[in-house]
Formats: sequence, C-alpha cells, structure tokens
Amino acid sequence: MPKGKVIALLTDFGLDDNYVGTMKAVIAGINPKACVIDLSHAVQPQDILGGAFLLNASYKFFPKGTIFVVVVDPGVGGERKIVCVQTRDYIFLSPDNGILGPVTAQEEILSLVEVSNTKFFLPNVSSTFHGRDIFAPVAAHLSLGLKPARLGDNLEELKKIDLPRPKVSTGGTLTGEIIYVDRFGNLITNIDDNLIKGAGANISSITIGDKKIGKLITSYQDGHSGEPVALIGSPGHLEVAVNCGNASKSLNCSRGDKVTVKFVRS
Amino acid sequence: MPKGKVIALLTDFGLDDNYVGTMKAVIAGINPKACVIDLSHAVQPQDILGGAFLLNASYKFFPKGTIFVVVVDPGVGGERKIVCVQTRDYIFLSPDNGILGPVTAQEEILSLVEVSNTKFFLPNVSSTFHGRDIFAPVAAHLSLGLKPARLGDNLEELKKIDLPRPKVSTGGTLTGEIIYVDRFGNLITNIDDNLIKGAGANISSITIGDKKIGKLITSYQDGHSGEPVALIGSPGHLEVAVNCGNASKSLNCSRGDKVTVKFVRS
Amino acid sequence: MPKGKVIALLTDFGLDDNYVGTMKAVIAGINPKACVIDLSHAVQPQDILGGAFLLNASYKFFPKGTIFVVVVDPGVGGERKIVCVQTRDYIFLSPDNGILGPVTAQEEILSLVEVSNTKFFLPNVSSTFHGRDIFAPVAAHLSLGLKPARLGDNLEELKKIDLPRPKVSTGGTLTGEIIYVDRFGNLITNIDDNLIKGAGANISSITIGDKKIGKLITSYQDGHSGEPVALIGSPGHLEVAVNCGNASKSLNCSRGDKVTVKFVRS
Repeated sequence: MPKGKVIALLTDFGLDDNYVGTMKAVIAGINPKACVIDLSHAVQPQDILGGAFLLNASYKFFPKGTIFVVVVDPGVGGERKIVCVQTRDYIFLSPDNGILGPVTAQEEILSLVEVSNTKFFLPNVSSTFHGRDIFAPVAAHLSLGLKPARLGDNLEELKKIDLPRPKVSTGGTLTGEIIYVDRFGNLITNIDDNLIKGAGANISSITIGDKKIGKLITSYQDGHSGEPVALIGSPGHLEVAVNCGNASKSLNCSRGDKVTVKFVRS
Repeated sequence: MPKGKVIALLTDFGLDDNYVGTMKAVIAGINPKACVIDLSHAVQPQDILGGAFLLNASYKFFPKGTIFVVVVDPGVGGERKIVCVQTRDYIFLSPDNGILGPVTAQEEILSLVEVSNTKFFLPNVSSTFHGRDIFAPVAAHLSLGLKPARLGDNLEELKKIDLPRPKVSTGGTLTGEIIYVDRFGNLITNIDDNLIKGAGANISSITIGDKKIGKLITSYQDGHSGEPVALIGSPGHLEVAVNCGNASKSLNCSRGDKVTVKFVRS
Repeated sequence: MPKGKVIALLTDFGLDDNYVGTMKAVIAGINPKACVIDLSHAVQPQDILGGAFLLNASYKFFPKGTIFVVVVDPGVGGERKIVCVQTRDYIFLSPDNGILGPVTAQEEILSLVEVSNTKFFLPNVSSTFHGRDIFAPVAAHLSLGLKPARLGDNLEELKKIDLPRPKVSTGGTLTGEIIYVDRFGNLITNIDDNLIKGAGANISSITIGDKKIGKLITSYQDGHSGEPVALIGSPGHLEVAVNCGNASKSLNCSRGDKVTVKFVRS
C-alpha cells in the first residue's frame, strides 16, 4: 500500500448532517484514491476525552501510514492551533486541545507542526467548519505524500489531556472509573490489564457503583445469562458486562461511575 | 472485478463505537484494495433472527464473489465455532449460531469449513472482539484469493435457524407475523409473495393485530395518504405500510405481531 | 480522476436497514471502481425540503463529475417521473418531485432527461425500492461514462421547490426562519449571508422565537460559553448557536421557527 493511503476520520459530527459527507467530498477531489475509514463520528459533541479514548483504543489496528483526522473541536474558529503530529507509524491531525494526549503518551513524536499553510486549505475558510475547509484538504494532500513540514512551522509543545487514572490505595485497593459505555452496555473502565494481569486469582472483589461483581472471567460466555461479570475487554481494559444483556442498564451505571477492585492480602 | 473483492459487513455493532472502524482498519492493512460495503450494523444486539432476515433480503444483490462477514455473535469467546460457507456465488463467514440458515436454504453449500487456522488471525486474539481479531483478517485474506479450505477442517454440519414460517389452516387462512420493521415504519411480514402470488383478487381480508387492512395494492402510491395498505415490498414479502406515514406507529404494531390473510372461497 | 467516478448518495433511508447497503452492492456489481460517498441518509422520511437543503449546502464541495443520487421519494411506484439533470459540473438523479429546485436555481441545466430506459435498470423492478432497482444501477452506468441522453427522452420541464425565502419589510426588517437544525443544535436559517453581508455593524437586533440574540459574531468562540450567538455558519447562512452548548435545546427552537433581523436606520 502506498504510504498514507488510508485516512481515518474521528469526529463528533454525527452521521445525520452533511458534515462527514462533505469532508469526504473534499478529500475525493484532491486524492480520489484515498481510502477513507470512519473510526467513529459519534463522539459526544465537544467531548475531547471521549474522542481521546476511542482514538487510543483503535489506532494501533490501522495500517502503517494511516493519517488520522481527529476533529472534536469546541474551539473552532478561535485561537486554538491545528497540529500535525508525526510518529513512527502514523500522522495525526487535530486541534491542539489535548485530544492526542493518550496516543502521544505511547508513541514518540517525531515531528510536531502547526498547520498554517493556507496553500493546502480550501480557498475560502469558514470560521465554523474547519473539518471541511482545513482538515479534509490537508489530510488529502498528506495522503498524496506531502511532507508535514510543508504545513507550517515546528511547534515546541503539544497540549495533552490524559485519560483519568486509577488510584492504588494502601492495602492494594484499586479505584478506577467507567470511561466508556458501548452499544452493548458494556462498561469499560480505565483500569488497564497491566494493573491486574496475573492477579485474577488474587482479586477478592470488584465493585461498580454499589454492586458487587463476581470474579474476573475470560469471556462473556463464562457468565450466566443476565449476570454481571468482569473481564478484560477488547481495548485491554477491565470491563463489566452482562452476558446477553446490557450492564449499563441493569446496573444503572454510566461514564464516570467508580469501580473498585480489591485484592486478597497475600 | 477480481473475485472476492467486495467484503460486505453485517453486524450488531452499531456505528457509534469504534468496532466497525477497527474492522475496516484491519481489512485495509491486509487488502487495501478491498471494497467494504456496510450491509447494516444496526441488527439489535445478539438478534440472530434479525440478522438472518437482513442477510437473506439482501445477499442476492451483491456482486458474485462477495465475502459476507456476519457478526451477530452472542457466543463470542465461548465454544461456538466460526464457519466459512462457500456457495456457488458467495462466501459467508459467521459464528456457527444458525444465522446462515435462511441463506443456505436457498444456496447450495459447496464447502463448509471451521475457521481455526490462526495463521490468518491477528496475532493476539481477544476473547470479546472476534470481529476485529478473526473475522476481519480472515475476510481480507479471502478477498486476496485465499481458498476457504486453508482456513481449517471441513465441518459435517452447519447450525441453521429458520425464519418463522406462516401457517396455512384449513379454509385457506394464512397466518404469519411481522418479522421486520424498517425506518419508515413499514411492517414486513414472513409471508412470501409466492404464497399469495396471483391470489390478489381472491384475498378477502388482511388483518394485522386487530386492524383490518384493505386489499392488496401495487405501490405505496395506490393508498390514500395516511391509510394502511398491504403490498408486496422490496424483499418480496407481504408488507403493511402507510402512504406518507408510519404503519408501525399508527397501527401500534411491532415485530412478532400476527398477520392473517383470508381468501375468498372459490 | 476519471469523469463521474464519485457517486454521492443522499436519501431518507437511514442507516439501520439494508437499503443503503443494497444500493452500494448494486453499484459495486456494475462499477466496482466507483467511489461512493454518503452525503446523508438521515433526511426525515419523505422530507423533500430537508433533502433539498442538504444537497444545496453540500454539492459544490464535491469533485467535478460527481453523480448525485437523491432519493427522497414519497411517490415511489406511482406516476412521478425519475429525472437526470446535467449541469456543467455535475449529474443529478432524483424523482421529479422538486428536490433539485434549489440546486438548479444556481446551476444551469444543460440537459434534462426522463430516466426510462429499462436497459439500465435491474431486471426486476419492484414498486417500492427504486433506489436499488433504478437509481443505483443507472448511477453506476453513468459513472462508467454512459451519456445521460441514453437514459430516455428529453423533458421540457423540471419540478422545482424552493427553500422558504426570507421577507424584507419596510423599515428594513428581515424575517426568515430556521430551515435546519444540526447535531450540535445549531439553528441554521434561510437568511443568506448576501442579505446581511457588510451589514454586521448595522444590525440592531436578531430575534429568534421570542429570544433576543446578541450581535453578529465571527465564530462560536466569540460567544461566552452557554450564551446564544448569531454568526454566518458554514453553509453561508445566518445561524444561531450556543458556544459549547445546544441552541435548539436552550432556546427551545426548531425548524420553521421565525427569525427576525432588524437594522439600525441609517
């Protein structure tokens, strides 16, 4: 595959309006051979943290050379910068609002550029839709091989937010929170599998809200139908699910709710 | 078109999460030239019957050589097998949970293989997201020309569910049910046009729930605006609709509700 | 890019059912190299005006040669015609129900043809799903270079609806209405920027419903968080928005609501 042929879109635009389609139109006009993949457009409006989570959970599955266009942009038209970050395998375009924090905590930044060269923008740039007027054409040019350095000057520093981190208290209790609820009602926490790997046998309890969940299991199937279970889900995080059910509904839990893991003293 | 270049995705993943986008990312990494078509991702979670209906109503419109990836998979991570079914014109990948029943009632199975060769999976297979870790890479390899036989051993038997069948009672009454409600509120029944073809003039009444519907008409336009009508819809099934309205709402009917067709004694 | 390689789809089919996927399947079977872009499928069922707005707000951003397939079609299966309109840069396929009115008010019609040549339809045409049986195959053939003249006879006249127009009353008051509400709750009006261009300083008040909005600003960022503001949005229309909020919800406004702009007497 030619380098950079895949353009991945992650936005809070939804699919009901013409916004995503118009971005794809602009891309097709510049590089009709680009392969555009919708990562998601259902980030809640202006939810930078939610976008950061989805990007972080997904980017490694994209082919090397993918250009990620991340437009969750409450500051559009204001003074926030637009950045282009190059890592060993990927290029990321986004507003400089911190959304690339989790990814760049894992991937070394090889170059960081402010996107300011209007030569690669649409001729008329609106103050409300940079996805169409700046992000789409810039991504399309990058997919044709444009060097990020051509987009503008180097920046010293990238703004970064971090996903909320779980806390380890004395006695070994781990306190995290739900950071994402998916279509199935699965409750994905910020507790990374590294924190509990190999500790399965030593977990004495997992509590979400005020509900105790059984032991850590391996797959949804290991839970009785309708029973909430804890497992390591596909993004590598501790997750609470109900086999053939909806954990979010049956436990009445949502993003931000606390999750506690206690370990057997050993 | 090279054989197998189209990959059709039918899942219950929805489009809000990163699941479908990640599957496409994996496919693009293996076969960047694959043409991926979303059949639907709005099957209700774990609704095998709903998925079977949509697949059955659509597959014949896809180009020969299409690889269908059908992931409605309540048993993911458990003991259910993954199967690859080859028919004269198509390849179907799905969990062995019966979802291919209606299609294979129409298409002869030329080969049936258990998908088990990890060589064509992602290196790390999670226990919760086989769409990404198994289905996507296997489909991509098939689209590059991989023979299904390379995926694993032959299986003796495929699990099959059947769409609910209408009953014909003495006196010629046909009793079926609503099996799908679409965005327009059209009520699609399990009564195939073969059962009533040519019988239009002989139908004395069509009843849905406790509401009598007028005679069988040819198109939505033949009904007065707001009036419920019965016609043969695009999947070739008896359908109750309201011209410029929503039959599901105005008749307060949903999936599973009974539909009765009575014929004039002749 | 080869002429006509992009096919843009704008429908009221939604994405939950198999309708859009089946259209893409038919297209891929005829022209596997077509680049299909979803403009939107979330037009409200049978909402011709809503479809006309989205098309008008977007079409200029598509590459020259794009074939627009516009299927908002309450008259499907009835006597309404299907038309193919060629302009200098684009081809439009739609039911002859007026939906191309706003576009053809801006683009000169070079040819207008009734789509009737069944040679380019699917062999079996249903009476309920012309998107699949007529629009998709015809668009695919056009994308392969088929001349519109081959589709049928010339038509004398195209049906046209117009977007509601704002009124200018004596004293210079401009009265328009909300014609679109987007995912962010932004209230897009039918007041074109031409009507108020350069008049920013001379606007004395903007009223929406019974709520006075502050002066015209340049970007969402110029408004305090939570405060409703007026600006020229990305389709070039006066728009009322709430910075980091949802104007539709906080002002309790929706499509059809009145918007009044008063100017300072000069």
